[in-house]
Amino acid sequence: MLITFLSDFGLEDDFVGTCHGVMKGITPDVDIIDITHGIQRHGVLQGAIVLANTLPYLPVGVHLAVVDPGVGGGRRSLALRSGGDRLFVGPDNGLLAPAAEKFGGITAAHEITNPAYLLDHVSATFHGRDVFSPVAAHLAGGVALADVGPEIEPESLVRLEVPKADVTQRRIRASCLYVDRFGNMELNLTRKDLDELAPEPGTLVELEIGAERYYAVTARTFADARDGEIILYEDAYENIAIAISGGSAAGTFYSAEPGVDVLIRLAD
Amino acid sequence: MLITFLSDFGLEDDFVGTCHGVMKGITPDVDIIDITHGIQRHGVLQGAIVLANTLPYLPVGVHLAVVDPGVGGGRRSLALRSGGDRLFVGPDNGLLAPAAEKFGGITAAHEITNPAYLLDHVSATFHGRDVFSPVAAHLAGGVALADVGPEIEPESLVRLEVPKADVTQRRIRASCLYVDRFGNMELNLTRKDLDELAPEPGTLVELEIGAERYYAVTARTFADARDGEIILYEDAYENIAIAISGGSAAGTFYSAEPGVDVLIRLAD
Amino acid sequence: MLITFLSDFGLEDDFVGTCHGVMKGITPDVDIIDITHGIQRHGVLQGAIVLANTLPYLPVGVHLAVVDPGVGGGRRSLALRSGGDRLFVGPDNGLLAPAAEKFGGITAAHEITNPAYLLDHVSATFHGRDVFSPVAAHLAGGVALADVGPEIEPESLVRLEVPKADVTQRRIRASCLYVDRFGNMELNLTRKDLDELAPEPGTLVELEIGAERYYAVTARTFADARDGEIILYEDAYENIAIAISGGSAAGTFYSAEPGVDVLIRLAD
Repeated sequence: MLITFLSDFGLEDDFVGTCHGVMKGITPDVDIIDITHGIQRHGVLQGAIVLANTLPYLPVGVHLAVVDPGVGGGRRSLALRSGGDRLFVGPDNGLLAPAAEKFGGITAAHEITNPAYLLDHVSATFHGRDVFSPVAAHLAGGVALADVGPEIEPESLVRLEVPKADVTQRRIRASCLYVDRFGNMELNLTRKDLDELAPEPGTLVELEIGAERYYAVTARTFADARDGEIILYEDAYENIAIAISGGSAAGTFYSAEPGVDVLIRLAD
Repeated sequence: MLITFLSDFGLEDDFVGTCHGVMKGITPDVDIIDITHGIQRHGVLQGAIVLANTLPYLPVGVHLAVVDPGVGGGRRSLALRSGGDRLFVGPDNGLLAPAAEKFGGITAAHEITNPAYLLDHVSATFHGRDVFSPVAAHLAGGVALADVGPEIEPESLVRLEVPKADVTQRRIRASCLYVDRFGNMELNLTRKDLDELAPEPGTLVELEIGAERYYAVTARTFADARDGEIILYEDAYENIAIAISGGSAAGTFYSAEPGVDVLIRLAD
Repeated sequence: MLITFLSDFGLEDDFVGTCHGVMKGITPDVDIIDITHGIQRHGVLQGAIVLANTLPYLPVGVHLAVVDPGVGGGRRSLALRSGGDRLFVGPDNGLLAPAAEKFGGITAAHEITNPAYLLDHVSATFHGRDVFSPVAAHLAGGVALADVGPEIEPESLVRLEVPKADVTQRRIRASCLYVDRFGNMELNLTRKDLDELAPEPGTLVELEIGAERYYAVTARTFADARDGEIILYEDAYENIAIAISGGSAAGTFYSAEPGVDVLIRLAD
């Protein structure tokens, strides 16, 4: 069984490599796919969204995720099973649930407590290495989920509040979930939502991003727009995103940050 | 058969990890070497140069490359075979040709059209995930090149114009192809070209980089130069490059960018 | 036998990917763990510390490390064996020794000279690709250590001077070894050292970082501190580090750089 791995560790330090070392030390032939380690520091919501977005493209396996601002405090360590026989390992802070509930819901939840599957010395600040990586490797190597610790109620897991858009035929109040490397701003909005307001591609809309105001057009893809034009398009994860054709929305708008409010109105 | 993978996706987002997920889902035991994902955004020429430079050091396999500003427009998707039985997969924008022609030329070219080897839903903006990764994985798993789509003429492929240096015994007009992490500027110039002007190591030359002027010396390696000295040396890919011994050319010269003109003259 | 790989190559360029290509070309089924390639440019001491810190978490294998400001000069190329049957490959500049001496000392040292295990053409500037990667791959594939070149005296290896803290019951003079992605400053200090000055958690201390002065408290983990508080804690590699709870020490202190002096005194 393979392991996928997502974190906010970055690649400048040894954190990711050390976790790989721990996993390969326990289950030498395990294959590890690094989804990304570029989640913004302590960006639990961003991590949860990226994990849920990418899951349909990942083979069934153990999905290890570590974005863990509460390490060393009282938060629980989790190992979950979901529909499709996928396993999830990470902190109980909401990071895992949106992905784990994507395919048929959480079918079993366990709190990680069994010291047999942790490193001998568990540090106060690096449970990615000392708790989550060894458990993921043991599960990938065939250890039963029930062996890592006592069963807990799926309902007891911490949940994130994912902001919801407010959609009417006159305007949409959305918010930015994520800004990618290309400067595109992913919104909490689907094509169906946008169709309420602007069913025709090529519709001109007014855009408020925080306190900034722009005109934009709805488009199918970058190739449909002129260079420099601001577009609203359905991105590859089926969310509506804001982009600048041939440019970078994040490099152009001062307020292009996760969490910023975005108001979309039909232009007069 | 292994896959090598080069792109402008960066590692901050999930793009690379998701493509790995798609490939491992199709051909679970495939080995993937990430050449780099640090090609500058939409840097097709840079990507083509890096792929051609590194190819002699890569095992024979499927060479997947995605730098794709035209995604979602009309550009074709390619699968090529070259001498040495190497396969190449990527967009028809010039990215693949310099590498594919490095060892005995392109022996077969196919346009990717067969939906059997693509993901079920092909998005408008992420063909790296939906088209190129699955095709690369199927080819690595043994699918025949001819099965991915109709044969096309190698002559019909889009070619890049790689800038050529103008070399005389009095001066060289070159241009910068690439700036690496260490701040070294790779030029479109070989040792043989530089020898026309300055056959002896240790020759003092005048350097114009855009509008900036400096003195530099020709050297075999960094260890031949004093700290802070500007040198012209043959880099590890057998191109002449500009460096500062113990420093960074890119951090020192305002115009140290790919594409900048570089004039080299013998100092009086 | 697997290979672990640490360098200052970064991931923006192809350097790491090209070395992977060389290693897989020689020993196709070798598994490679990238510890990190984010060591600061020419940061030999930082590389040595990270390699020694992470080693206990890495499976036994060939530990390849390349931080090599002297490439192309006269420095030797090394292949070492240490206790625990670990092998080390890299330049003779002090990078390998702290790790190689961690488990029972260096039991054999060889200078790499045998051209049979290098690439056919060895460039003047990229021994990571042309010397160290091929030797690491051959060793991982079963070549005997003695075959890579003549035995040399372990005592003859270049050693780094790792700065030592000066600890009294009234004050500690330490220095910063390393700043991580989260902005935490690792010091050349252990819990035992700090206990000389401040055995109780929650002790208020004065901190001088270069010319800056702050108050800090000793803590077990981030969760013990209020947001914004400066803490001294034992990090995951059992060094004392300076952090800001919920923030970044490196983003707050002007002098948060490796090498800066840190003075710790009991607050009045």
